[in-house]
Amino acid sequence: MFKATVIVKRRPKILDPQGKAVEQGAKLLGFNNVRQTRIGKYIEFFVDTDDKNLAEKEVKEYSEKLLSNPIMEDFEYSITEVNVSGESK
Amino acid sequence: MFKATVIVKRRPKILDPQGKAVEQGAKLLGFNNVRQTRIGKYIEFFVDTDDKNLAEKEVKEYSEKLLSNPIMEDFEYSITEVNVSGESK
Repeated sequence: MFKATVIVKRRPKILDPQGKAVEQGAKLLGFNNVRQTRIGKYIEFFVDTDDKNLAEKEVKEYSEKLLSNPIMEDFEYSITEVNVSGESK
Repeated sequence: MFKATVIVKRRPKILDPQGKAVEQGAKLLGFNNVRQTRIGKYIEFFVDTDDKNLAEKEVKEYSEKLLSNPIMEDFEYSITEVNVSGESK
C-alpha cells in the first residue's frame, strides 16, 4: 500500500480571490505584515496496491483528472510505501 | 522577510464529504485502488518583518483565527527566511 500526498496550487499569474479575502480579514484583525496569501489544496489518500509504478500512475492521473484544474492549477505529489495500518515502512 | 507555509487538515474523526465526492469520481474513472481521500488546505504567504519571533507569532495567530476552523481542523506551519524577491536566504 502507498500513501500519496498531492499539493495543488493556482499558477502564480492566476488571481486567488479566496486568499485576497482572507488577507483582508487579517488586516482587520491587526496582522499588518501578512502579504500575498494564496490558498491551495493539500490532499492525502492511499493507493491499495503493491506495484509502485501502478501506484504512481494512478496518483498522477487522479491528480490531473480530478484533484486539479489543468487550466489554472499545477500539482506536485509524493508517494511513500506504508503498511496496512498506514505507517511508513 | 519570511515565507510561511500552513497546512490545514480536518481532524481524522471528522467526515470529509469533499474527499468522498472526489473519490466517487475516481471510481467512475476506473481508479479502483484509491482509498480514504481527504482534502485539506495548503496556504502560502509572506510575513514582512525581520523579527523571527514576531513572524512566528503572526503566522500562528493568523492560522488559528483565519486559516483554520479550531472546532474541526488542525494546522501545522513552517517558516523560512527569504530575501525580498521571495528566494530562500
